[in-house]
Amino acid sequence: MLYIIGLGLSDERDITVKGLEAVKKSERVYLEAYTSILMVPKERLEAFYGRDVIVAHRETVESNSDDILRDADKIDVSLLVVGDPYGATTHSDLVIRAHELNIPVKTIHNASIMNAVGATGLQLYSFGQTISLVFFTDSWRPDSFYDRIKENAAIGLHTLCLLDIKVREQSIENMMRNRPIYEPPRYMSVNLAIEQLLEVEENRKEKAYTEDTIAVGVSRLGSDDQVIKAGTLKQLLDVDFGQPLHSLVLVGSRLHLLEAEVLREYAVDLDGLNLVLKRDYGIDK
Amino acid sequence: MLYIIGLGLSDERDITVKGLEAVKKSERVYLEAYTSILMVPKERLEAFYGRDVIVAHRETVESNSDDILRDADKIDVSLLVVGDPYGATTHSDLVIRAHELNIPVKTIHNASIMNAVGATGLQLYSFGQTISLVFFTDSWRPDSFYDRIKENAAIGLHTLCLLDIKVREQSIENMMRNRPIYEPPRYMSVNLAIEQLLEVEENRKEKAYTEDTIAVGVSRLGSDDQVIKAGTLKQLLDVDFGQPLHSLVLVGSRLHLLEAEVLREYAVDLDGLNLVLKRDYGIDK
Repeated sequence: MLYIIGLGLSDERDITVKGLEAVKKSERVYLEAYTSILMVPKERLEAFYGRDVIVAHRETVESNSDDILRDADKIDVSLLVVGDPYGATTHSDLVIRAHELNIPVKTIHNASIMNAVGATGLQLYSFGQTISLVFFTDSWRPDSFYDRIKENAAIGLHTLCLLDIKVREQSIENMMRNRPIYEPPRYMSVNLAIEQLLEVEENRKEKAYTEDTIAVGVSRLGSDDQVIKAGTLKQLLDVDFGQPLHSLVLVGSRLHLLEAEVLREYAVDLDGLNLVLKRDYGIDK
Repeated sequence: MLYIIGLGLSDERDITVKGLEAVKKSERVYLEAYTSILMVPKERLEAFYGRDVIVAHRETVESNSDDILRDADKIDVSLLVVGDPYGATTHSDLVIRAHELNIPVKTIHNASIMNAVGATGLQLYSFGQTISLVFFTDSWRPDSFYDRIKENAAIGLHTLCLLDIKVREQSIENMMRNRPIYEPPRYMSVNLAIEQLLEVEENRKEKAYTEDTIAVGVSRLGSDDQVIKAGTLKQLLDVDFGQPLHSLVLVGSRLHLLEAEVLREYAVDLDGLNLVLKRDYGIDK
């Protein structure tokens, strides 16, 4: 059996009881390490599970999946995924390959940012499509996300923005020389995300959002020191959200009174927030 | 401390390790029983937790929240919610009331249908707003969901349809006479949902969807006997999805090749599905 097991959001104890039982009886345990991270090191997972954990990079899961699937028709193998197994990627290649090899697959679900973002007080019913923001480089500043946000905004919906992580990046020189040397991991902050968003708005000028759009920044959601802060993009630009991971929600115009009430609890500048709620969202106190 | 703990999708072992620890140290444990159900009886939860579980109906959580919060500044109290605490409702009233009483609140997240629906192979990034379908009655056949589906469809997005459950319904006579007698629980099936959807399309005729729209029906997601079936609405109309809970996804036109490949694995009529994929979604084999 191949178990694909969600680890949830924060630490080793966010695994479900069912997931933990599957890990404990697996002969090999892989940790998918490229779409998200837990807030604890691999060694803490190993101690808690009583199992070695093999870090699986993107190329292993996507191209060398037969390594993961080896003997899984006879023994149990677990692939651990931070969040839910179907959050950032559907692992379709791996599942389809397992089916071809007649290996049964069982998914054990868990929380992901996609549903836990409800902790902001914004209703999950009122979210449109989710977008990803990647680190801009000098030569690569893709802005296709802008059209997605605009589509959501046009019908008043919130947009969850997932922020880039780079955990196994090579410098161009090391890549050219085929040297397996990797840069330190980088995680996009709410602040950088807002900078990039405003740069693209400045270029496009179609008002998918402005610096006065209300947003909610979250960091380390699901952990004991999670931070949730609400304000306009301009207000949030200088707020320190601390350690990764960060995410950002752009608030749509169909904002409900009860959602606004919770946003006020998280306001970085209550008067400023109330002013924009009244002027741009039609919500009075 | 008030713990608001997601139970996940299926049975008593879908709780997280962290959630189970919180339950075990709580003096009172409530189970919110009106937005979703687990597939196991309350007694099985009680045996697994070693704790009595008090069923909390909507009126308790929303109007008598002080019962739940009693002494929670001094002792630990848990409110268990099927799925994730922020799935179907944000529990904002309860959280705001706790804050007023200076009671700390901690949320322990879990999977909900909102993210686990990724198990269909459809990418969570490509879902628009989620809608709810309620049981039609002779006099009440609300169709505001139709506009939401139409908005999603206009930009090519999938729509997750959550299906009504009635777990504590009174007959009009019993309600009039104030008799606490409740009807047997009812859970909307995929089949009834499709009937209602097609009835509304028949009335509105704006082609938000048609009987040839591709959809995915799911039941008991996350359990060992989950069912996932893909086909046109017409094809799925007579498919038996078995015991509750059921959900339905309408597939948007921005369907990706890889998503289509997974849908084929779940097809109830592969030739029919391929024909519609090619004709209406522009996806060839």
